[in-house]
Amino acid sequence: MRSAIRNTELIREDEAVLPVVSREVQYSFSVYEALRITDGHVVHLDDHLKRLAASCDDIGLVHHFSDDDIEKSLNKLIAADGISNATARIFVVGGPSPLLFITYSDLLTYPDSYYTGGVKATLYHGERFMPQAKTSNLLMQYIALEEARREGAFEALLVDRNGEVLEGTRSNFYAIKGSRLYTAPDDKVLSGITRISVLKAAAELGLETVYEPPLASNLASYDSVFISATSMAAMPVSHIDGVELGKGCWPLILDIMRLVRKWE
Amino acid sequence: MRSAIRNTELIREDEAVLPVVSREVQYSFSVYEALRITDGHVVHLDDHLKRLAASCDDIGLVHHFSDDDIEKSLNKLIAADGISNATARIFVVGGPSPLLFITYSDLLTYPDSYYTGGVKATLYHGERFMPQAKTSNLLMQYIALEEARREGAFEALLVDRNGEVLEGTRSNFYAIKGSRLYTAPDDKVLSGITRISVLKAAAELGLETVYEPPLASNLASYDSVFISATSMAAMPVSHIDGVELGKGCWPLILDIMRLVRKWE
Repeated sequence: MRSAIRNTELIREDEAVLPVVSREVQYSFSVYEALRITDGHVVHLDDHLKRLAASCDDIGLVHHFSDDDIEKSLNKLIAADGISNATARIFVVGGPSPLLFITYSDLLTYPDSYYTGGVKATLYHGERFMPQAKTSNLLMQYIALEEARREGAFEALLVDRNGEVLEGTRSNFYAIKGSRLYTAPDDKVLSGITRISVLKAAAELGLETVYEPPLASNLASYDSVFISATSMAAMPVSHIDGVELGKGCWPLILDIMRLVRKWE
Repeated sequence: MRSAIRNTELIREDEAVLPVVSREVQYSFSVYEALRITDGHVVHLDDHLKRLAASCDDIGLVHHFSDDDIEKSLNKLIAADGISNATARIFVVGGPSPLLFITYSDLLTYPDSYYTGGVKATLYHGERFMPQAKTSNLLMQYIALEEARREGAFEALLVDRNGEVLEGTRSNFYAIKGSRLYTAPDDKVLSGITRISVLKAAAELGLETVYEPPLASNLASYDSVFISATSMAAMPVSHIDGVELGKGCWPLILDIMRLVRKWE
Protein backbone atom coordinates (compact mmCIF):
# COMPACT_ATOMS: atom_id res chain seq x y z
CA MET A 1 0.00 0.00 0.00
CA ARG A 2 1.29 3.40 -1.02
CA SER A 3 1.59 6.23 1.44
CA ALA A 4 0.02 9.66 1.06
CA ILE A 5 -0.08 12.98 2.87
CA ARG A 6 -3.03 14.51 4.69
CA ASN A 7 -2.46 17.95 6.23
CA THR A 8 1.34 17.37 6.25
CA GLU A 9 0.94 13.99 8.05
CA LEU A 10 2.00 10.72 6.45
CA ILE A 11 -0.97 8.34 6.03
CA ARG A 12 -1.86 5.22 4.05
CA GLU A 13 -3.23 5.96 0.60
CA ASP A 14 -6.60 4.42 1.49
CA GLU A 15 -6.91 6.97 4.30
CA ALA A 16 -6.77 9.80 1.76
CA VAL A 17 -10.51 10.36 1.68
CA LEU A 18 -12.99 13.23 1.52
CA PRO A 19 -16.11 13.44 3.68
CA VAL A 20 -19.25 13.33 1.53
CA VAL A 21 -21.04 15.67 3.96
CA SER A 22 -18.51 18.49 3.53
CA ARG A 23 -20.09 21.43 1.69
CA GLU A 24 -16.77 22.21 -0.01
CA VAL A 25 -16.50 18.63 -1.26
CA GLN A 26 -20.09 18.80 -2.51
CA TYR A 27 -19.41 22.10 -4.34
CA SER A 28 -16.00 21.01 -5.72
CA PHE A 29 -14.41 23.99 -3.99
CA SER A 30 -10.87 22.71 -4.47
CA VAL A 31 -7.68 23.16 -6.49
CA TYR A 32 -4.86 20.85 -7.50
CA GLU A 33 -1.48 20.44 -9.17
CA ALA A 34 -0.04 17.43 -11.00
CA LEU A 35 3.76 17.19 -10.82
CA ARG A 36 6.46 14.95 -12.22
CA ILE A 37 8.92 13.28 -9.92
CA THR A 38 11.94 11.98 -11.83
CA ASP A 39 14.93 10.36 -10.10
CA GLY A 40 13.47 11.47 -6.78
CA HIS A 41 13.48 15.10 -7.91
CA VAL A 42 10.26 17.15 -8.09
CA VAL A 43 10.21 18.97 -11.43
CA HIS A 44 9.50 22.74 -11.36
CA LEU A 45 8.15 22.57 -7.81
CA ASP A 46 8.36 26.34 -7.29
CA ASP A 47 6.29 27.01 -10.41
CA HIS A 48 3.67 24.49 -9.30
CA LEU A 49 3.47 26.02 -5.82
CA LYS A 50 3.11 29.47 -7.37
CA ARG A 51 0.30 28.29 -9.61
CA LEU A 52 -1.43 26.47 -6.72
CA ALA A 53 -1.40 29.74 -4.77
CA ALA A 54 -2.72 31.62 -7.82
CA SER A 55 -5.56 29.11 -8.24
CA CYS A 56 -6.48 29.55 -4.55
CA ASP A 57 -6.44 33.35 -4.96
CA ASP A 58 -8.61 33.16 -8.07
CA ILE A 59 -11.41 31.23 -6.39
CA GLY A 60 -11.01 32.75 -2.91
CA LEU A 61 -9.77 29.55 -1.25
CA VAL A 62 -7.93 30.36 1.98
CA HIS A 63 -5.77 27.69 3.65
CA HIS A 64 -2.96 27.64 6.17
CA PHE A 65 -0.50 25.29 4.40
CA SER A 66 2.69 27.14 3.51
CA ASP A 67 4.86 26.36 0.48
CA ASP A 68 7.38 25.03 2.96
CA ASP A 69 4.75 22.72 4.52
CA ILE A 70 3.92 21.34 1.09
CA GLU A 71 7.53 20.91 0.01
CA LYS A 72 8.45 19.15 3.26
CA SER A 73 5.37 16.93 2.96
CA LEU A 74 6.28 15.97 -0.60
CA ASN A 75 9.81 15.12 0.46
CA LYS A 76 8.48 13.12 3.43
CA LEU A 77 6.32 11.10 1.03
CA ILE A 78 9.19 10.58 -1.42
CA ALA A 79 11.45 9.38 1.41
CA ALA A 80 8.81 7.15 3.02
CA ASP A 81 8.02 5.23 -0.16
CA GLY A 82 11.44 5.57 -1.79
CA ILE A 83 9.80 7.21 -4.82
CA SER A 84 12.06 7.56 -7.83
CA ASN A 85 9.68 8.27 -10.72
CA ALA A 86 6.03 9.18 -10.27
CA THR A 87 3.27 11.63 -11.02
CA ALA A 88 2.30 13.37 -7.79
CA ARG A 89 -0.91 15.23 -7.11
CA ILE A 90 -1.34 18.06 -4.62
CA PHE A 91 -5.00 18.64 -3.79
CA VAL A 92 -6.42 21.35 -1.52
CA VAL A 93 -10.06 21.55 -0.45
CA GLY A 94 -11.25 24.89 0.97
CA GLY A 95 -13.79 25.82 3.62
CA PRO A 96 -13.67 26.28 7.39
CA SER A 97 -11.27 23.30 7.80
CA PRO A 98 -9.13 23.17 4.66
CA LEU A 99 -7.66 19.82 3.70
CA LEU A 100 -4.35 19.14 1.96
CA PHE A 101 -3.67 15.82 0.26
CA ILE A 102 -0.64 14.61 -1.66
CA THR A 103 -0.98 11.32 -3.51
CA TYR A 104 0.99 9.76 -6.33
CA SER A 105 0.74 7.23 -9.13
CA ASP A 106 3.07 5.67 -11.69
CA LEU A 107 4.85 8.30 -13.76
CA LEU A 108 2.56 9.12 -16.67
CA THR A 109 4.53 8.54 -19.89
CA TYR A 110 3.57 7.90 -23.50
CA PRO A 111 4.94 5.60 -26.21
CA ASP A 112 7.55 7.05 -28.59
CA SER A 113 5.03 6.55 -31.40
CA TYR A 114 2.91 9.38 -29.95
CA TYR A 115 5.83 11.71 -30.68
CA THR A 116 6.96 10.25 -34.01
CA GLY A 117 3.46 9.67 -35.42
CA GLY A 118 1.54 12.41 -33.65
CA VAL A 119 -1.76 12.00 -31.82
CA LYS A 120 -5.35 12.50 -32.88
CA ALA A 121 -7.56 15.14 -31.31
CA THR A 122 -11.22 16.14 -31.50
CA LEU A 123 -12.93 19.49 -31.03
CA TYR A 124 -15.37 20.16 -28.20
CA HIS A 125 -17.40 23.35 -28.00
CA GLY A 126 -17.35 24.65 -24.46
CA GLU A 127 -15.75 27.27 -22.25
CA ARG A 128 -14.09 26.72 -18.90
CA PHE A 129 -15.23 28.71 -15.88
CA MET A 130 -12.22 30.69 -14.60
CA PRO A 131 -9.80 29.19 -17.15
CA GLN A 132 -6.66 30.32 -15.32
CA ALA A 133 -7.49 28.42 -12.12
CA LYS A 134 -6.68 24.71 -11.85
CA THR A 135 -9.77 23.54 -9.99
CA SER A 136 -11.76 20.32 -9.59
CA ASN A 137 -14.57 21.64 -11.78
CA LEU A 138 -13.52 19.28 -14.54
CA LEU A 139 -16.81 17.79 -15.66
CA MET A 140 -16.61 19.39 -19.13
CA GLN A 141 -13.07 18.12 -19.55
CA TYR A 142 -14.12 14.63 -18.45
CA ILE A 143 -17.03 14.53 -20.90
CA ALA A 144 -15.01 16.02 -23.77
CA LEU A 145 -12.19 13.52 -23.23
CA GLU A 146 -14.57 10.54 -23.01
CA GLU A 147 -16.08 11.65 -26.32
CA ALA A 148 -12.59 11.96 -27.86
CA ARG A 149 -11.61 8.49 -26.64
CA ARG A 150 -14.77 6.96 -28.07
CA GLU A 151 -13.63 8.37 -31.42
CA GLY A 152 -10.13 6.94 -30.98
CA ALA A 153 -8.54 10.28 -30.21
CA PHE A 154 -6.03 11.12 -27.50
CA GLU A 155 -7.17 14.61 -26.57
CA ALA A 156 -10.15 16.94 -26.97
CA LEU A 157 -9.51 20.60 -27.78
CA LEU A 158 -11.88 23.20 -26.35
CA VAL A 159 -13.39 25.71 -28.77
CA ASP A 160 -14.94 28.92 -27.44
CA ARG A 161 -17.98 30.87 -28.67
CA ASN A 162 -15.80 32.70 -31.20
CA GLY A 163 -14.61 29.45 -32.77
CA GLU A 164 -11.14 29.81 -31.26
CA VAL A 165 -9.20 26.72 -30.18
CA LEU A 166 -7.97 27.70 -26.73
CA GLU A 167 -6.53 24.59 -25.07
CA GLY A 168 -6.99 20.86 -24.57
CA THR A 169 -8.78 19.16 -21.67
CA ARG A 170 -5.36 18.54 -20.06
CA SER A 171 -2.95 20.39 -22.35
CA ASN A 172 -2.12 23.74 -23.91
CA PHE A 173 -2.45 24.17 -27.66
CA TYR A 174 -0.19 25.72 -30.33
CA ALA A 175 -0.06 26.09 -34.11
CA ILE A 176 3.01 26.97 -36.19
CA LYS A 177 3.01 28.87 -39.48
CA GLY A 178 6.34 29.91 -40.96
CA SER A 179 8.41 31.31 -38.11
CA ARG A 180 5.41 32.11 -35.92
CA LEU A 181 3.91 30.16 -33.03
CA TYR A 182 0.22 30.90 -32.40
CA THR A 183 -1.38 30.23 -29.02
CA ALA A 184 -4.15 31.71 -26.88
CA PRO A 185 -3.32 34.66 -24.60
CA ASP A 186 -2.57 33.78 -20.98
CA ASP A 187 -5.84 35.12 -19.58
CA LYS A 188 -7.95 32.71 -21.63
CA VAL A 189 -6.27 29.44 -20.68
CA LEU A 190 -4.66 27.54 -17.86
CA SER A 191 -1.18 28.91 -17.25
CA GLY A 192 0.62 25.66 -17.98
CA ILE A 193 3.93 25.14 -16.22
CA THR A 194 5.17 23.30 -19.31
CA ARG A 195 3.77 26.10 -21.48
CA ILE A 196 6.36 28.43 -19.93
CA SER A 197 9.12 26.04 -21.05
CA VAL A 198 7.53 25.53 -24.47
CA LEU A 199 7.43 29.26 -25.18
CA LYS A 200 11.01 29.64 -23.97
CA ALA A 201 12.16 26.73 -26.14
CA ALA A 202 10.26 28.11 -29.14
CA ALA A 203 12.02 31.45 -28.76
CA GLU A 204 15.37 29.73 -28.47
CA LEU A 205 14.62 27.85 -31.69
CA GLY A 206 13.81 31.06 -33.56
CA LEU A 207 10.00 31.14 -33.35
CA GLU A 208 8.11 34.33 -32.60
CA THR A 209 5.09 33.77 -30.32
CA VAL A 210 1.83 35.44 -31.37
CA TYR A 211 -0.84 35.40 -28.66
CA GLU A 212 -3.77 34.75 -30.98
CA PRO A 213 -5.69 31.47 -30.71
CA PRO A 214 -6.03 29.54 -33.99
CA LEU A 215 -9.57 29.29 -35.37
CA ALA A 216 -11.14 25.82 -35.45
CA SER A 217 -12.24 26.49 -39.03
CA ASN A 218 -8.71 27.26 -40.13
CA LEU A 219 -6.46 24.59 -38.60
CA ALA A 220 -5.43 23.02 -41.92
CA SER A 221 -3.81 26.31 -42.94
CA TYR A 222 -1.03 25.92 -40.35
CA ASP A 223 2.23 24.09 -40.98
CA SER A 224 1.74 21.93 -37.87
CA VAL A 225 -0.08 21.98 -34.53
CA PHE A 226 0.87 20.51 -31.16
CA ILE A 227 -0.10 20.24 -27.51
CA SER A 228 1.88 20.47 -24.28
CA ALA A 229 1.46 19.28 -20.71
CA THR A 230 3.58 18.23 -17.76
CA SER A 231 3.23 14.57 -18.77
CA MET A 232 3.60 15.16 -22.53
CA ALA A 233 6.17 17.95 -22.80
CA ALA A 234 5.36 18.85 -26.47
CA MET A 235 3.50 16.36 -28.67
CA PRO A 236 2.55 16.79 -32.36
CA VAL A 237 -1.10 16.46 -33.39
CA SER A 238 -1.66 14.50 -36.61
CA HIS A 239 -5.45 14.79 -37.03
CA ILE A 240 -8.21 16.97 -35.66
CA ASP A 241 -11.75 15.63 -36.07
CA GLY A 242 -10.41 13.23 -38.66
CA VAL A 243 -8.72 15.89 -40.82
CA GLU A 244 -5.02 15.25 -41.41
CA LEU A 245 -2.82 18.19 -40.53
CA GLY A 246 0.62 19.32 -41.72
CA LYS A 247 3.77 17.57 -40.51
CA GLY A 248 6.24 20.16 -41.80
CA CYS A 249 7.26 21.40 -38.35
CA TRP A 250 7.31 18.10 -36.46
CA PRO A 251 11.12 18.05 -36.23
CA LEU A 252 10.89 21.51 -34.66
CA ILE A 253 8.17 20.34 -32.25
CA LEU A 254 10.36 17.43 -31.17
CA ASP A 255 13.24 19.86 -30.63
CA ILE A 256 10.93 21.86 -28.37
CA MET A 257 10.00 18.63 -26.56
CA ARG A 258 13.65 17.77 -25.97
CA LEU A 259 14.46 21.25 -24.63
CA VAL A 260 11.44 21.14 -22.30
CA ARG A 261 12.61 17.81 -20.89
CA LYS A 262 16.21 19.03 -20.65
CA TRP A 263 15.15 21.93 -18.46
CA GLU A 264 13.45 19.67 -15.96
CA MET B 1 -23.28 9.59 15.14
CA ARG B 2 -25.70 9.66 12.24
CA SER B 3 -25.99 6.77 9.83
CA ALA B 4 -25.61 6.99 6.08
CA ILE B 5 -25.86 4.73 3.05
CA ARG B 6 -23.03 3.57 0.82
CA ASN B 7 -24.04 1.38 -2.13
CA THR B 8 -27.31 0.42 -0.40
CA GLU B 9 -25.48 -0.62 2.82
CA LEU B 10 -26.03 1.17 6.11
CA ILE B 11 -22.80 2.76 7.41
CA ARG B 12 -21.74 5.39 9.94
CA GLU B 13 -21.77 8.93 8.54
CA ASP B 14 -18.01 9.25 9.03
CA GLU B 15 -17.56 6.25 6.73
CA ALA B 16 -19.25 8.15 3.90
CA VAL B 17 -16.01 9.17 2.21
CA LEU B 18 -14.59 9.51 -1.29
CA PRO B 19 -11.13 8.28 -2.30
CA VAL B 20 -8.90 11.19 -3.32
CA VAL B 21 -7.16 8.98 -5.91
CA SER B 22 -10.37 8.23 -7.85
CA ARG B 23 -10.30 9.92 -11.25
CA GLU B 24 -14.06 10.48 -11.10
CA VAL B 25 -13.74 12.19 -7.72
CA GLN B 26 -10.90 14.32 -9.10
CA TYR B 27 -12.97 15.32 -12.15
CA SER B 28 -16.20 15.88 -10.16
CA PHE B 29 -17.94 13.32 -12.36
CA SER B 30 -20.97 13.03 -10.08
CA VAL B 31 -24.61 14.00 -9.68
CA TYR B 32 -26.87 14.57 -6.70
CA GLU B 33 -30.35 15.30 -5.38
CA ALA B 34 -31.40 17.15 -2.22
CA LEU B 35 -34.74 16.00 -0.81
CA ARG B 36 -37.03 16.95 2.04
CA ILE B 37 -38.11 14.38 4.56
CA THR B 38 -41.10 15.57 6.60
CA ASP B 39 -42.84 13.40 9.18
CA GLY B 40 -40.78 10.46 7.94
CA HIS B 41 -42.13 10.92 4.40
CA VAL B 42 -39.82 11.63 1.46
CA VAL B 43 -41.30 14.50 -0.53
CA HIS B 44 -41.66 14.01 -4.32
CA LEU B 45 -39.28 11.04 -4.31
CA ASP B 46 -40.36 9.87 -7.77
CA ASP B 47 -39.62 13.27 -9.29
CA HIS B 48 -36.18 13.35 -7.63
CA LEU B 49 -35.36 9.85 -8.87
CA LYS B 50 -36.45 10.85 -12.37
CA ARG B 51 -34.25 13.93 -12.30
CA LEU B 52 -31.30 11.96 -10.90
CA ALA B 53 -31.60 9.56 -13.85
CA ALA B 54 -31.86 12.50 -16.27
CA SER B 55 -28.71 14.09 -14.80
CA CYS B 56 -26.86 10.77 -15.22
CA ASP B 57 -28.05 10.52 -18.83
CA ASP B 58 -26.99 14.08 -19.57
CA ILE B 59 -23.39 13.57 -18.48
CA GLY B 60 -23.10 9.91 -19.52
CA LEU B 61 -22.84 8.54 -15.99
CA VAL B 62 -23.75 4.83 -15.92
CA HIS B 63 -24.47 3.11 -12.60
CA HIS B 64 -26.25 -0.02 -11.47
CA PHE B 65 -28.37 1.37 -8.63
CA SER B 66 -32.06 1.04 -9.44
CA ASP B 67 -34.76 3.46 -8.28
CA ASP B 68 -35.93 0.64 -6.04
CA ASP B 69 -32.41 0.26 -4.55
CA ILE B 70 -32.34 3.96 -3.77
CA GLU B 71 -35.85 4.07 -2.33
CA LYS B 72 -35.21 1.04 -0.10
CA SER B 73 -31.88 2.53 1.02
CA LEU B 74 -33.56 5.81 1.92
CA ASN B 75 -36.21 3.98 3.92
CA LYS B 76 -33.52 1.87 5.62
CA LEU B 77 -31.74 5.07 6.68
CA ILE B 78 -34.98 6.69 7.88
CA ALA B 79 -35.83 3.60 9.93
CA ALA B 80 -32.32 3.15 11.35
CA ASP B 81 -32.05 6.70 12.68
CA GLY B 82 -35.76 7.26 13.26
CA ILE B 83 -35.65 10.30 11.00
CA SER B 84 -38.74 12.47 11.13
CA ASN B 85 -37.66 15.75 9.49
CA ALA B 86 -34.45 16.17 7.52
CA THR B 87 -32.84 17.24 4.29
CA ALA B 88 -31.43 14.14 2.59
CA ARG B 89 -28.81 14.05 -0.13
CA ILE B 90 -28.43 11.34 -2.75
CA PHE B 91 -24.99 11.45 -4.37
CA VAL B 92 -23.73 9.24 -7.19
CA VAL B 93 -20.14 9.19 -8.42
CA GLY B 94 -19.52 7.62 -11.83
CA GLY B 95 -16.65 5.64 -13.30
CA PRO B 96 -15.72 1.95 -13.41
CA SER B 97 -16.96 1.40 -9.83
CA PRO B 98 -19.85 3.82 -9.28
CA LEU B 99 -20.58 4.90 -5.72
CA LEU B 100 -23.94 5.74 -4.19
CA PHE B 101 -24.19 7.72 -0.96
CA ILE B 102 -27.19 8.92 0.96
CA THR B 103 -26.56 11.31 3.85
CA TYR B 104 -28.80 13.72 5.71
CA SER B 105 -28.74 16.85 7.81
CA ASP B 106 -31.23 18.90 9.81
CA LEU B 107 -34.21 19.95 7.72
CA LEU B 108 -33.26 23.21 6.02
CA THR B 109 -35.88 25.80 6.95
CA TYR B 110 -35.96 29.59 6.97
CA PRO B 111 -37.42 32.17 9.36
CA ASP B 112 -40.92 33.50 8.62
CA SER B 113 -39.36 36.93 8.10
CA TYR B 114 -37.75 35.65 4.86
CA TYR B 115 -41.27 35.17 3.51
CA THR B 116 -42.93 38.25 4.98
CA GLY B 117 -40.02 40.64 4.35
CA GLY B 118 -38.47 39.01 1.29
CA VAL B 119 -34.79 38.25 0.78
CA LYS B 120 -31.98 40.16 -0.89
CA ALA B 121 -30.20 38.84 -3.97
CA THR B 122 -27.21 39.83 -6.06
CA LEU B 123 -26.43 39.31 -9.74
CA TYR B 124 -23.51 37.16 -10.91
CA HIS B 125 -22.47 36.99 -14.55
CA GLY B 126 -21.78 33.41 -15.49
CA GLU B 127 -23.28 30.45 -17.30
CA ARG B 128 -23.60 26.92 -16.01
CA PHE B 129 -22.17 24.03 -18.01
CA MET B 130 -25.05 21.66 -18.86
CA PRO B 131 -27.63 23.67 -16.89
CA GLN B 132 -30.24 20.90 -16.82
CA ALA B 133 -27.97 18.41 -15.04
CA LYS B 134 -27.62 18.54 -11.25
CA THR B 135 -23.89 17.82 -10.96
CA SER B 136 -21.09 18.52 -8.49
CA ASN B 137 -19.57 21.14 -10.78
CA LEU B 138 -20.73 23.85 -8.43
CA LEU B 139 -17.68 26.08 -8.13
CA MET B 140 -19.36 29.02 -9.86
CA GLN B 141 -22.38 28.67 -7.58
CA TYR B 142 -20.11 28.50 -4.51
CA ILE B 143 -18.20 31.63 -5.52
CA ALA B 144 -21.35 33.54 -6.53
CA LEU B 145 -23.06 32.68 -3.25
CA GLU B 146 -20.01 33.62 -1.15
CA GLU B 147 -19.96 36.99 -2.91
CA ALA B 148 -23.69 37.45 -2.26
CA ARG B 149 -23.28 36.60 1.43
CA ARG B 150 -20.42 39.08 1.80
CA GLU B 151 -22.87 41.71 0.56
CA GLY B 152 -25.52 40.60 3.04
CA ALA B 153 -27.65 38.87 0.41
CA PHE B 154 -29.34 35.47 0.62
CA GLU B 155 -28.96 34.32 -2.99
CA ALA B 156 -27.01 35.12 -6.15
CA LEU B 157 -28.83 35.11 -9.47
CA LEU B 158 -26.95 33.96 -12.56
CA VAL B 159 -27.02 36.25 -15.60
CA ASP B 160 -26.07 34.86 -19.03
CA ARG B 161 -24.21 36.53 -21.92
CA ASN B 162 -27.50 38.03 -23.15
CA GLY B 163 -28.16 39.75 -19.82
CA GLU B 164 -30.96 37.31 -18.97
CA VAL B 165 -31.55 36.26 -15.37
CA LEU B 166 -31.89 32.50 -15.63
CA GLU B 167 -31.82 31.06 -12.12
CA GLY B 168 -30.23 31.33 -8.68
CA THR B 169 -27.25 29.36 -7.40
CA ARG B 170 -29.67 27.02 -5.64
CA SER B 171 -33.08 28.21 -6.81
CA ASN B 172 -35.24 28.90 -9.84
CA PHE B 173 -36.22 32.47 -10.66
CA TYR B 174 -39.52 34.14 -11.62
CA ALA B 175 -40.90 37.62 -12.23
CA ILE B 176 -44.58 38.61 -12.26
CA LYS B 177 -46.12 41.41 -14.31
CA GLY B 178 -49.90 41.72 -14.38
CA SER B 179 -51.29 38.24 -14.83
CA ARG B 180 -48.11 36.85 -16.36
CA LEU B 181 -45.31 34.87 -14.77
CA TYR B 182 -41.95 35.13 -16.57
CA THR B 183 -39.26 32.48 -16.16
CA ALA B 184 -36.48 30.94 -18.27
CA PRO B 185 -37.36 28.07 -20.63
CA ASP B 186 -36.69 24.58 -19.27
CA ASP B 187 -33.64 23.91 -21.46
CA LYS B 188 -31.69 26.84 -19.99
CA VAL B 189 -32.02 26.02 -16.29
CA LEU B 190 -32.09 23.22 -13.77
CA SER B 191 -35.46 21.49 -13.93
CA GLY B 192 -36.41 22.22 -10.35
CA ILE B 193 -38.75 19.74 -8.69
CA THR B 194 -40.32 22.63 -6.80
CA ARG B 195 -40.49 24.60 -10.06
CA ILE B 196 -43.00 22.05 -11.35
CA SER B 197 -45.22 22.75 -8.33
CA VAL B 198 -44.69 26.52 -8.57
CA LEU B 199 -45.85 26.60 -12.20
CA LYS B 200 -48.84 24.41 -11.35
CA ALA B 201 -49.73 26.66 -8.40
CA ALA B 202 -49.32 29.78 -10.53
CA ALA B 203 -51.73 28.37 -13.12
CA GLU B 204 -54.21 27.48 -10.41
CA LEU B 205 -54.01 31.07 -9.12
CA GLY B 206 -54.74 32.51 -12.56
CA LEU B 207 -51.22 33.35 -13.81
CA GLU B 208 -50.15 32.61 -17.36
CA THR B 209 -46.54 31.36 -17.60
CA VAL B 210 -44.36 32.95 -20.27
CA TYR B 211 -41.06 31.13 -20.86
CA GLU B 212 -38.93 34.22 -21.34
CA PRO B 213 -36.20 35.02 -18.81
CA PRO B 214 -36.38 38.55 -17.36
CA LEU B 215 -33.52 40.87 -18.32
CA ALA B 216 -31.16 41.93 -15.52
CA SER B 217 -31.44 45.52 -16.77
CA ASN B 218 -35.21 45.49 -16.47
CA LEU B 219 -36.04 43.87 -13.14
CA ALA B 220 -37.57 46.99 -11.59
CA SER B 221 -40.27 46.98 -14.26
CA TYR B 222 -41.90 43.83 -12.83
CA ASP B 223 -44.56 43.88 -10.14
CA SER B 224 -42.56 41.39 -8.00
CA VAL B 225 -39.90 38.71 -8.35
CA PHE B 226 -39.33 35.50 -6.41
CA ILE B 227 -37.24 32.34 -6.19
CA SER B 228 -38.11 28.71 -5.53
CA ALA B 229 -36.28 25.65 -4.26
CA THR B 230 -37.01 22.44 -2.37
CA SER B 231 -36.02 24.11 0.91
CA MET B 232 -37.67 27.48 0.17
CA ALA B 233 -40.86 26.57 -1.70
CA ALA B 234 -41.50 30.10 -3.09
CA MET B 235 -39.80 33.12 -1.47
CA PRO B 236 -40.21 36.80 -2.46
CA VAL B 237 -37.10 38.82 -3.37
CA SER B 238 -37.06 42.35 -1.92
CA HIS B 239 -33.81 43.72 -3.41
CA ILE B 240 -31.45 42.82 -6.23
CA ASP B 241 -27.98 44.39 -6.10
CA GLY B 242 -29.36 46.91 -3.61
CA VAL B 243 -32.29 48.04 -5.76
CA GLU B 244 -35.66 47.70 -4.05
CA LEU B 245 -38.21 45.78 -6.08
CA GLY B 246 -42.02 45.80 -6.16
CA LYS B 247 -44.02 44.07 -3.43
CA GLY B 248 -47.38 44.18 -5.24
CA CYS B 249 -47.58 40.43 -5.82
CA TRP B 250 -46.15 39.19 -2.53
CA PRO B 251 -49.53 37.95 -1.28
CA LEU B 252 -49.80 35.95 -4.52
CA ILE B 253 -46.24 34.58 -4.07
CA LEU B 254 -47.12 33.46 -0.55
CA ASP B 255 -50.23 31.76 -1.91
CA ILE B 256 -47.98 29.91 -4.35
CA MET B 257 -45.69 28.96 -1.46
CA ARG B 258 -48.60 27.57 0.55
CA LEU B 259 -49.88 25.52 -2.39
CA VAL B 260 -46.38 24.13 -3.04
CA ARG B 261 -46.11 23.03 0.59
CA LYS B 262 -49.66 21.64 0.58
CA TRP B 263 -48.79 19.35 -2.35
CA GLU B 264 -45.84 17.80 -0.52
